[in-house]
Amino acid sequence: MEQHVQDEWEKFSELLAKISGYSEAIGLLHWDLRTGAPRKGAEIRSETIGMLSGEMFRLETSPLMGKFTEFFSRPEVMKQLTAVQNTIVADCRKEYDRSKSIPSKRYEEYSVLAAHSQTMWEEAKENNDFASFEPYLSKIVAFKQEFIDYWGVKGTRYDTLLDMYEPDLTVEKVDDLFNRLRSRLVPLVEAISASPHKPDTKFLHAIFEKEQQQKFGLFVLEQMGYDFAAGRLDESVHPFATGLNPGDVRITTNYLLDNVTSAVFSSLHEGGHALYEQNINKELVGTPLAQGASMGIHESQSRLWENMIGRSRTFWHRYYGDLQQHFPQQLAGVEVEDFYQAINSVANSFIRIEADELTYNLHIIVRYEIEKLIFNEGLAVKDLPQVWNAKYQEYLGITPPTDELGVLQDVHWSGGDFGYFASYSLGNMYAAQILNTLRKELPEFDELIAAGNLLPIKEWLTAKIYVYGKSLTPAQIIEQVTGEPLNPDYLADYLEVKYTELYKL
Amino acid sequence: MEQHVQDEWEKFSELLAKISGYSEAIGLLHWDLRTGAPRKGAEIRSETIGMLSGEMFRLETSPLMGKFTEFFSRPEVMKQLTAVQNTIVADCRKEYDRSKSIPSKRYEEYSVLAAHSQTMWEEAKENNDFASFEPYLSKIVAFKQEFIDYWGVKGTRYDTLLDMYEPDLTVEKVDDLFNRLRSRLVPLVEAISASPHKPDTKFLHAIFEKEQQQKFGLFVLEQMGYDFAAGRLDESVHPFATGLNPGDVRITTNYLLDNVTSAVFSSLHEGGHALYEQNINKELVGTPLAQGASMGIHESQSRLWENMIGRSRTFWHRYYGDLQQHFPQQLAGVEVEDFYQAINSVANSFIRIEADELTYNLHIIVRYEIEKLIFNEGLAVKDLPQVWNAKYQEYLGITPPTDELGVLQDVHWSGGDFGYFASYSLGNMYAAQILNTLRKELPEFDELIAAGNLLPIKEWLTAKIYVYGKSLTPAQIIEQVTGEPLNPDYLADYLEVKYTELYKL
Repeated sequence: MEQHVQDEWEKFSELLAKISGYSEAIGLLHWDLRTGAPRKGAEIRSETIGMLSGEMFRLETSPLMGKFTEFFSRPEVMKQLTAVQNTIVADCRKEYDRSKSIPSKRYEEYSVLAAHSQTMWEEAKENNDFASFEPYLSKIVAFKQEFIDYWGVKGTRYDTLLDMYEPDLTVEKVDDLFNRLRSRLVPLVEAISASPHKPDTKFLHAIFEKEQQQKFGLFVLEQMGYDFAAGRLDESVHPFATGLNPGDVRITTNYLLDNVTSAVFSSLHEGGHALYEQNINKELVGTPLAQGASMGIHESQSRLWENMIGRSRTFWHRYYGDLQQHFPQQLAGVEVEDFYQAINSVANSFIRIEADELTYNLHIIVRYEIEKLIFNEGLAVKDLPQVWNAKYQEYLGITPPTDELGVLQDVHWSGGDFGYFASYSLGNMYAAQILNTLRKELPEFDELIAAGNLLPIKEWLTAKIYVYGKSLTPAQIIEQVTGEPLNPDYLADYLEVKYTELYKL
Repeated sequence: MEQHVQDEWEKFSELLAKISGYSEAIGLLHWDLRTGAPRKGAEIRSETIGMLSGEMFRLETSPLMGKFTEFFSRPEVMKQLTAVQNTIVADCRKEYDRSKSIPSKRYEEYSVLAAHSQTMWEEAKENNDFASFEPYLSKIVAFKQEFIDYWGVKGTRYDTLLDMYEPDLTVEKVDDLFNRLRSRLVPLVEAISASPHKPDTKFLHAIFEKEQQQKFGLFVLEQMGYDFAAGRLDESVHPFATGLNPGDVRITTNYLLDNVTSAVFSSLHEGGHALYEQNINKELVGTPLAQGASMGIHESQSRLWENMIGRSRTFWHRYYGDLQQHFPQQLAGVEVEDFYQAINSVANSFIRIEADELTYNLHIIVRYEIEKLIFNEGLAVKDLPQVWNAKYQEYLGITPPTDELGVLQDVHWSGGDFGYFASYSLGNMYAAQILNTLRKELPEFDELIAAGNLLPIKEWLTAKIYVYGKSLTPAQIIEQVTGEPLNPDYLADYLEVKYTELYKL
């Protein structure tokens, strides 16, 4: 590398490190707001988050960033950079080009609103009061519509939002993937409904003391290889994982007293996200590549741990005894096979994060359809509860009795995360396809789980996926790991095999 | 106010709000690092704190700040501002003039170091290993010496540091105050040593479960009027209070299993700081006046609650029954008067924060003398343990057996807080003088405490002190509240009366 290129790279790295620093601070301010910050400080806190988000945005779209990305994109300079360096430049350039024309004041106002409206959502959910939340959500949608114009529209307006979480994802692609998936899921769900086999799930809903739930959750995270010296587990209304820096990747969960599995599966889920972030190559630290390749790939890791491992028969043959020890009274007389059947019982239900693996994707399709309506058809926010309920009736055959169990259940929209939900089903698809390869390359997969030796699985995922962070695209990762592009049939196959056996179809 | 002055004021207010935002973020990053951030994230975290501190420093010393403070200091503009506005300008101008020539890069490096070295101090203290901490402390001292040159020296070099925490405080003034105080304390301590009365303190050191200590601490904070909707209580190695914003003023404590009073008194102490910050006039929010008048005044409030209220006989006549209920076995058969005598037992001991009210001031004088030696006489950091031990022998007649019980006990130096310690004894002096007025203006003072009705006391302090924040100087506050300047005789009188009775002298 020529000296002047190296000098420029050092200055560029300082800018990137500064952006990472802002991101860490904003992440902590958010985490704190969701895990126990005092209520009376929330309003000023939202302004602080907005101010810092605005500053970070200013750096990402600054003339200096423009200058650096232009310089490092010159062919004679690119030749001197490593592949990773070129990817860093391309990533910054994409963000710069996309956002540079948004006035940073507007972005700051939006960030204040998004932070504040998450607090308003928490209250609205608690009080089952959509009306109090509606004005905030309307403003967020208006901001997103405004930003879509700045970001630029290639296909449909909603495509612009999908691309934020999954590069190059479009309505056309999602429609195709979801149609293919649905065409295979619907007959399966119907067959299950018609099946006389109805697993008993009552015992999952005794009273399970929080302290014991917490202990078991910590135990499971330890088993997965989650590094507590580089993370911590807290409580929040809606579980989440957040990577503040590679040595500080936190997760939260929510303990439901009358539901023993909710916190277990959310810990496995968020733990999967966290394993990813904890194991990104340390050389990427301080660059925009020190994060997941996309939200779809991120969700593939959370869903793989939560479902493909966490809801497997083998997993519970190993760990059910531990769970029973934590709840000897509640689970007395419940056999492991009963438990396995219960946690995989398929039922059309209201709450996405508590849904079974099969109908889960229908919950996602509902949200995806609604977001399309909002951004491509102009659906008004005030009509969301009604449309939500109608879609649940259409796709799941049930109508939520309250907004708390309906349109208010998810945190995402309150924080402006429109376009995110598709990532969950994409994640399921990626996960099933990755699992297929994992089983081939680690033939002792089941034996490892049966022996409670999950670390080789974590290590395989680290070597194949985690370590790359965002230095590969989702398409590159899935090709490199599995040898073919994303194919929803793996998920359909996986679900068919699992549920045909479970429901004796 | 002329329109253009008003326009400028609005822009100035935006700058101030931005500085407050940085301060909140930095405060939270620090709080989190001390209360449970994962170890492996601490190093990058320190850099993030440093980066943001550098940004904040850049704003405080920016040409824009120079321009505003110059403009608002013009006589024709000053006339148009309120008294509070003029104080804001003066405060910003003082900081700007003092620090503008420090290169912001240097300040940022210092901030990274200070954050990191607090973590190193925690480890060094845990391992009783001064040598591992010495290089960090040496660098901090070197930075302070460098900054003193930038800040400017009027009297002695150490005066410059004293002035940071207490405006216009000098070695000359502190020497005088401390000499006057010591001349009255030494005979009192001697008389106590000679007294045959030796209160039994053994029962304070049974095993006291943490959960119960925590419950009692929360109860006491509630009694004081600490607003939990605008704060929270956590644990840290060294207790502290931090005002992130006026609706978010947090305190920490440290539970010692074999010491029932340590956490109680630290909660009262930090609670006193927090009451101050929670009750500052909301109109000062977003300005540099939304903090305590000085660290001396701040400590007067923590020490007043901790000692003058919290170690009073009346307080325990009301609350001892509650404490006993939390520890029925450990305190069985211990009468309230025994307890009162025990918590006020005077003994030369190693740990400042666990010292009695009387010898506490000697602990401060030791630190003050050592800081003077470092900054005015060039005492080397490597010699600190030896000098520390010698001073303890000289002032308290005991030599710490380990550095953990000696020079490593306090967090302050690790974070660069040289010049702070004097504030504690100043605080004791201010507190005794304020208490004297408080008793006159609220003659039912003892009855209120006896009835467990502490809120009128909080309200009196709010109206007289808290509400003003930093809009009055310490000199103005003490004059306005008590009608005279700071006078150490009030503290000496208070201690003489209390201990003459206690020790039947």
